[in-house]
Amino acid sequence: GVLGSGDFARSLAIRLICSGFKVVVGSRNPKRKAGLFPSAAEVTFQAEAVKKTDVIFVAVFREHYSTLCDLADALAGKILVDVSNNREINHHKESNAEYLASLFPACTVVKGFNVISAWTLQSGARDGNKQVLICSNNQEAKRIVAEIAQVMGFTPVDMGFMSSACEIENIPLRLFPAWKIPIFLALGLFLCFFTYNLVRQVIHPYIREQKNKFYKIPIEVVNTTLPCVAYIMLSLVYLPGVLAASSQLYYGTKYRRFPDWLDQWLQHRKQIGLLSFFCAALHAVYSLCLPMRRSHRYLLIETAVKQAVEKKMSIWIEEEVWRMEIYISVGIIALGLLSLLAITSLPSIADSLSWREFSFVQ
Amino acid sequence: GVLGSGDFARSLAIRLICSGFKVVVGSRNPKRKAGLFPSAAEVTFQAEAVKKTDVIFVAVFREHYSTLCDLADALAGKILVDVSNNREINHHKESNAEYLASLFPACTVVKGFNVISAWTLQSGARDGNKQVLICSNNQEAKRIVAEIAQVMGFTPVDMGFMSSACEIENIPLRLFPAWKIPIFLALGLFLCFFTYNLVRQVIHPYIREQKNKFYKIPIEVVNTTLPCVAYIMLSLVYLPGVLAASSQLYYGTKYRRFPDWLDQWLQHRKQIGLLSFFCAALHAVYSLCLPMRRSHRYLLIETAVKQAVEKKMSIWIEEEVWRMEIYISVGIIALGLLSLLAITSLPSIADSLSWREFSFVQ
Amino acid sequence: GVLGSGDFARSLAIRLICSGFKVVVGSRNPKRKAGLFPSAAEVTFQAEAVKKTDVIFVAVFREHYSTLCDLADALAGKILVDVSNNREINHHKESNAEYLASLFPACTVVKGFNVISAWTLQSGARDGNKQVLICSNNQEAKRIVAEIAQVMGFTPVDMGFMSSACEIENIPLRLFPAWKIPIFLALGLFLCFFTYNLVRQVIHPYIREQKNKFYKIPIEVVNTTLPCVAYIMLSLVYLPGVLAASSQLYYGTKYRRFPDWLDQWLQHRKQIGLLSFFCAALHAVYSLCLPMRRSHRYLLIETAVKQAVEKKMSIWIEEEVWRMEIYISVGIIALGLLSLLAITSLPSIADSLSWREFSFVQ
Repeated sequence: GVLGSGDFARSLAIRLICSGFKVVVGSRNPKRKAGLFPSAAEVTFQAEAVKKTDVIFVAVFREHYSTLCDLADALAGKILVDVSNNREINHHKESNAEYLASLFPACTVVKGFNVISAWTLQSGARDGNKQVLICSNNQEAKRIVAEIAQVMGFTPVDMGFMSSACEIENIPLRLFPAWKIPIFLALGLFLCFFTYNLVRQVIHPYIREQKNKFYKIPIEVVNTTLPCVAYIMLSLVYLPGVLAASSQLYYGTKYRRFPDWLDQWLQHRKQIGLLSFFCAALHAVYSLCLPMRRSHRYLLIETAVKQAVEKKMSIWIEEEVWRMEIYISVGIIALGLLSLLAITSLPSIADSLSWREFSFVQ
Repeated sequence: GVLGSGDFARSLAIRLICSGFKVVVGSRNPKRKAGLFPSAAEVTFQAEAVKKTDVIFVAVFREHYSTLCDLADALAGKILVDVSNNREINHHKESNAEYLASLFPACTVVKGFNVISAWTLQSGARDGNKQVLICSNNQEAKRIVAEIAQVMGFTPVDMGFMSSACEIENIPLRLFPAWKIPIFLALGLFLCFFTYNLVRQVIHPYIREQKNKFYKIPIEVVNTTLPCVAYIMLSLVYLPGVLAASSQLYYGTKYRRFPDWLDQWLQHRKQIGLLSFFCAALHAVYSLCLPMRRSHRYLLIETAVKQAVEKKMSIWIEEEVWRMEIYISVGIIALGLLSLLAITSLPSIADSLSWREFSFVQ
Repeated sequence: GVLGSGDFARSLAIRLICSGFKVVVGSRNPKRKAGLFPSAAEVTFQAEAVKKTDVIFVAVFREHYSTLCDLADALAGKILVDVSNNREINHHKESNAEYLASLFPACTVVKGFNVISAWTLQSGARDGNKQVLICSNNQEAKRIVAEIAQVMGFTPVDMGFMSSACEIENIPLRLFPAWKIPIFLALGLFLCFFTYNLVRQVIHPYIREQKNKFYKIPIEVVNTTLPCVAYIMLSLVYLPGVLAASSQLYYGTKYRRFPDWLDQWLQHRKQIGLLSFFCAALHAVYSLCLPMRRSHRYLLIETAVKQAVEKKMSIWIEEEVWRMEIYISVGIIALGLLSLLAITSLPSIADSLSWREFSFVQ
């Protein structure tokens, strides 16, 4: 049974029918809505739909849950699947599923399917996530819903008791939560170093010597800023490990919990490391672009002309040559090693490594 | 039971034995063929093999199905697993499995294992796909074959009724079906723009001014062609979404099916986008190679010599400098963003994103 | 039940409790150790813990197995799960699990969980491998332990009889076994070609003409060495396939086993190919860095000055120009194709290809 006639209800009904289930759709206005559903679905009034089925998907907004109260008697003893999502994280005090359970104490409420989009339901789980997170206080009801999810081609994941419902409802609303702090950190570091380099390379020569070097801003200043950010981010990856080890040595035990900030930091290491790699890769690309620029070409020609006019034949400075050769080759090797690190952090590669191999690479 | 003594039959028998099954191989010439099978397999005449077993893998070409008709009585009531493949897509009107079922109406026919190569069967499913697609009209038979596949280390996937057999038989024959149109599109666009750039940069100066610039063909002409292709492909990724939204607005409903060409287009967006990224990446590499070329070096030296002879000290053109700096930095940023898009389209990364995160990145 | 009070025992107990099991921990000194375990775990003397439980995880070092002999009577008929690891590959003649089974013939011993680290047990299987390899001579005991692993969020994998225990115990100790030979091969080839190029490009001109070209060592010599290594590695990927085909043609049969060295070689092709790609990619980056170097700049200016002083206007050599243009464009195309090969060898992409597509790309 499916209660509701919105987008999600429609997609759910289509998928259930395709998976071989018999579907009864309950709507407040079955005649007007029947056209939206495939002909294999029986569209009828809510009260009738409820009578005919044992497992009922409640595809109705939280605000309209109370309109179902008339059906309370018919719903008694049945399994209600709450598929609703909120519009904001922690918008209401209790989760939608717990609210539904409090309205219908005679029903068994199961939370699930909310992490699946209507589009995924219709098109089959090709891209994106196939997991359906399920929780309920009733083991038997959870098992039945998990089996339905399995038949529909999804991977049911047991999330335990109803108290997890709030967490499950927040999942479709989260937007890279683990990336937020590292990205702001990187942006902050970038801004600091960019300002410093801008003053040093452009504004200072302009004020002191009236030299117009503003053309350096888009590439050269950015390019000297990126490796600074990459270095600091990389050290921030390895620093918390050292701090954690020191704290363990200081307290003489492995079993003391780390303070919260250190714990958070340890969990963000992967993201910080990937951003460090991203900055290093951008630095490599920017550096490689340097000789392509007009300014590089003009400066080269000007130097050559100056030398030719002064009949100076040799400008070779051995020290400068060596410094650049070593700088570039160390940079390439560092980038190669960081690439290996980045590749092993791809989920499919990380899965195929044993624990010892993973820590060896890290 | 395995009927047949070809490569696939042999690999199947080996894998079944390794998974702990007792295997009886039926061959028309058991004495000559026995050497090919491991000693744990009992190789005997077809009629005898059929009598001893309940699940029989028919590893015989479709053309020879009729030779099994003598065994019809012995086969009655048993489960026949059709593992055959065709040589061309939709070669025969009905699928091999349906043909087999029509020859032996007293048997339960299950289609399966045809997507697995003989090599994968022998070596275990390390590389490539582990899924075994199974279909049958008999649920019980399907369950038994799925369990055998599971024990053999594969992942059985239920594809429903026998009518899916035709689709399953076409899978091993397909060759990147979703890539065909986008690749031809990219090639066509490349040819058009390449011809235009060839005429403009090489043939026109040759005819008008007798200048020999043919050396530009392998790199410079290709390099000006690639970003044009990349741009058009990228716009083709986002255009169908706009068209679809307009069509929904025009008809005032989300529930009207899009026309077929738009549907096809919407489904190829990922491939078109990846090809666009591939062209953009190639353009970046080509551009970076420009200053490495001899021709670049010669032109630079010639300009310098000319300037020196004429004692012109300054050739700095502020406008040209700025144009190049901005062009390059915008190019790098665009490539960085496209890389993020390309990385999130890797299956293992896409699986770990929630639906909202995926659409945010897109 | 968990016997032992080390790190692994503690993590195991925490995870079991989180998964909803009732846990009894047996320790030789329960009072002193109780603080280490969560309060939901009952920490008691070993003898008592054994009495209360049916499935007992033996989280004790192999050296201390004999100390459990006093419990032999209490353990009779129970399932012992051996979670131990060794410190070296094949350190002892028989595996730990077989040794445990020989000490307690009245118990059913199951090997498992040793591939999981204590950290993964505590934090949940987010990064790295989720598979728990299980083997035992008793099918029923294996099934029970597999179910426990499933509930704990791991993927149990049946590895067959107790004779596989030795193999399972070696897994956490292995460190990229398939990569060892290819990496040493690549290093060897690199050293050979590096020495040859060093002598040719640096030492020979120094001895014959007293020219100081040592600045070429970090980049130019490495850069001429890398493509040689990449070429030879690439040919080593395709050579064994040719040898295998020839051997099949020579013996006139597909069913003869290849000699061991050829078999090993065939299995290392993927690693050799990826190293070849890595060398080719490094060569590309090194080549792109060439015009960034000071030495390149100095040589260019020196040539320009020399030309200007001698008033030579044209230094254009058509042949040199063409050679470089073609060399670079072939290099870019080769790198593009190798990239496609490398991308399809990512596990998550390879899984989504059919067997025919995979061999087409290869």
